Amino acid sequence: MKIKIVLVSLCFSIYLNAQENKEIVNQIEILYKESLTNGKSYNWLDRLSNQIGGRLSGSLNAERAIQWAEEELNSLSLDSVWLQAVMVPKWVRGTFEYANIESSPGNTINVNICALGGSIATPSIGLRANVVEVKGIDNLAQLGEEKIKGKIVFFNGTMQSNQVDGFDAYAAAVNQRYSGAAEAAKYGAVAVIVRSLNFRLDNYPHTGVMSYGDLPLNKRIPAAAISTNHAELLSSMLTLNPKLRFFIKQSCKNYPDVKSYNVIAQIKGSESPENIILVGAHLDSWDLGDGAHDDGAGVVQSMEVLRLLRFKNFRPKNTIRLVLFANEENGLMGAKAYAESVKKKKETHLLALESDTGGFTPRGFSFDTRDKYFNKILSWKPYFKPYFIHLFEQKGSGADVNLLKGNAMVLAGLRTDSQRYFTHHHSEMDTFDQINKRELELGAATMAALVYLSDQLGLE
Amino acid sequence: MKIKIVLVSLCFSIYLNAQENKEIVNQIEILYKESLTNGKSYNWLDRLSNQIGGRLSGSLNAERAIQWAEEELNSLSLDSVWLQAVMVPKWVRGTFEYANIESSPGNTINVNICALGGSIATPSIGLRANVVEVKGIDNLAQLGEEKIKGKIVFFNGTMQSNQVDGFDAYAAAVNQRYSGAAEAAKYGAVAVIVRSLNFRLDNYPHTGVMSYGDLPLNKRIPAAAISTNHAELLSSMLTLNPKLRFFIKQSCKNYPDVKSYNVIAQIKGSESPENIILVGAHLDSWDLGDGAHDDGAGVVQSMEVLRLLRFKNFRPKNTIRLVLFANEENGLMGAKAYAESVKKKKETHLLALESDTGGFTPRGFSFDTRDKYFNKILSWKPYFKPYFIHLFEQKGSGADVNLLKGNAMVLAGLRTDSQRYFTHHHSEMDTFDQINKRELELGAATMAALVYLSDQLGLE
Repeated sequence: MKIKIVLVSLCFSIYLNAQENKEIVNQIEILYKESLTNGKSYNWLDRLSNQIGGRLSGSLNAERAIQWAEEELNSLSLDSVWLQAVMVPKWVRGTFEYANIESSPGNTINVNICALGGSIATPSIGLRANVVEVKGIDNLAQLGEEKIKGKIVFFNGTMQSNQVDGFDAYAAAVNQRYSGAAEAAKYGAVAVIVRSLNFRLDNYPHTGVMSYGDLPLNKRIPAAAISTNHAELLSSMLTLNPKLRFFIKQSCKNYPDVKSYNVIAQIKGSESPENIILVGAHLDSWDLGDGAHDDGAGVVQSMEVLRLLRFKNFRPKNTIRLVLFANEENGLMGAKAYAESVKKKKETHLLALESDTGGFTPRGFSFDTRDKYFNKILSWKPYFKPYFIHLFEQKGSGADVNLLKGNAMVLAGLRTDSQRYFTHHHSEMDTFDQINKRELELGAATMAALVYLSDQLGLE
Repeated sequence: MKIKIVLVSLCFSIYLNAQENKEIVNQIEILYKESLTNGKSYNWLDRLSNQIGGRLSGSLNAERAIQWAEEELNSLSLDSVWLQAVMVPKWVRGTFEYANIESSPGNTINVNICALGGSIATPSIGLRANVVEVKGIDNLAQLGEEKIKGKIVFFNGTMQSNQVDGFDAYAAAVNQRYSGAAEAAKYGAVAVIVRSLNFRLDNYPHTGVMSYGDLPLNKRIPAAAISTNHAELLSSMLTLNPKLRFFIKQSCKNYPDVKSYNVIAQIKGSESPENIILVGAHLDSWDLGDGAHDDGAGVVQSMEVLRLLRFKNFRPKNTIRLVLFANEENGLMGAKAYAESVKKKKETHLLALESDTGGFTPRGFSFDTRDKYFNKILSWKPYFKPYFIHLFEQKGSGADVNLLKGNAMVLAGLRTDSQRYFTHHHSEMDTFDQINKRELELGAATMAALVYLSDQLGLE
């Protein structure tokens, strides 16, 4: 009974609110309609994905993407566009990787693997060893050096399908990819093979960053991801023949850091230009696909936010700034450089909003902010209702804007439908043809609406 | 300020509610986890889509689907499974259709078309005529018989991309497909070509039911859909050469009605077996794809609801009944027969829930009911929150259950994310490989949760 009364009150408030701010309701409708009918995001993403492609930090393609973004932004009649220099890691995959399962001498089955970002190479003739399967890092201590030394550790932890939110399942499983090699090396493993972080059973290996922590150079071992289908195959073959051997060959290499850039653009505020509202995404991507979902979608959506806010010569009260961060995937050096410059210049950020969950149907936002600001934003929920945007939660923001903590009132991340994301993430499956135009455009409009509301109504 | 207070109260109610009904919270969690980890829906749909395929009313495949469903349901330890006989239309596509644009004699470009369901054939040598383009039925009167007689009318109304909800855009555009031929025939048109109802520009024609209304047999003209890309092509060629001719050849045919069946199964209620909670979907599909989204997804989700509710030997208070309706696509004869039997037997339906919006991420439900029942259901929203189910609106139910109006307290339809649906709908693109396993499973669990709540808490 209580709930019914509360809900009726809420509906009444929505009605009142909409009545009281008809101008805002109309402006938000214009943002959505412009994005859906004349939006630029899809064509921009076509260009970035298909004409440039995968753009790992330090690569020529990353430079091409920076040049492209700068040119496009210069054509948008914004107040300023500039580059912020930053040193980034350069890791190169080299020749594509190769692996097989040898059940008896000469009897091999090829399987699909890819080196994890940051991994060292195998010896040039490859590496063949017995395999010990574990479900996660916690299992290593139980096995101990006796059972691990000289072997390849096969981390076969799965993304738990009972998790409703894909990102929760990812967060619970990513540790084996990031730290598996460093931990297994301590027990004398010669390499690690990690099950791809993918709900689906398919043949695509998914890369991603790994770290050796403080492991000395001479203790480091090669690390690769294996497709989920081949992880299943390896596991079932191991139960039949625990003595089988696994062969892996990869020629990836770490080079010295190279110079790259954050791409920055802004519309100057008419009333409080010193107050900044940031929208952003990361321009780098992994090298296997073309980075359409991760994070090409976020890049073009953030660019579209600025275009939408310039539509009909709208002049924001606060400065609206776009940052396309360098090197989110394997170092966060772009975000670090930007955060340092913000501290140095003592710039004030009202909101810093990142899009980095793929170009899928937007569901809402995740925030990292004080309750007071969060409650203010919650009061705007009725404005989002016609667009099926319902998710407003305090559950972190985005990897890049997170570094602005302490220098921004509200950190936020666009949240999209998470069910399909990990099919594509960090793999050959992350390509432009897997983008739905309307879903991408709805995401851009949803970001623009939050920026517009923050600018017009303020967060205090 | 008011909104903030209301929201705080709502959060408090959610908390209290969860505390008060921990058993229900736990049971719903079990339904979701079972569906996501051991669900049968995806494998069932693989079988229905890939082993049986498209199953248009009156076809051998429709019979095979009925037999398959009956067998599967018989293996689920339900209380009863039976078939309800019903006469259904039989329309057969015949040889695949063929069309081209002739810009000058002998100079032709092939385009992709498909006959609309219910259409007559062209003469066996095909039909060639000039084309007049209109945006919708309303344009016909302006042109008049003078400009239409002897020509092919090309209905080129688009699905409006500024509509956020795909179903709204469909509803606004479907009239040209359903009634275009009947209306154009009145002005002497010799055939109609209708732009496919698809947001996307691609090469696939989308079929769907059409009607000649009360037009006499000898006045009927052939009707076909054209792919969106080829509609754009035809339109732009017409602006350059209004005298171009269009050739169309199709051999579809209407046969006398044939016998088919609704497949029905139920778990008998332990307390009020006379009260029925219905879940359902339509087992027939169009013939171009394999009907995975429309409505294979709904079929296997509805079957899964019964399996989930039998899991751990749960015994519902009310009777839970599954109905797989025959002939939704081109006649609704299955739904009519079921509704008539309900009236005749004076059966009481508490809830009749249909799934017919594709196997995409579930967002909530659409209802057709009295405010009193709707408000009761709204009070259950907190139970759905962990599963990102947020949409509860009074906006119709589903084509089949709609015929139970007056004999059910609550009519409802599962609502899924609508952005991708019309890419697949009624076309070759509606195939099993376009199904996301987790999205399908979440839909089944969401339906099961509403059924469970209605059964345990009642709707009064």
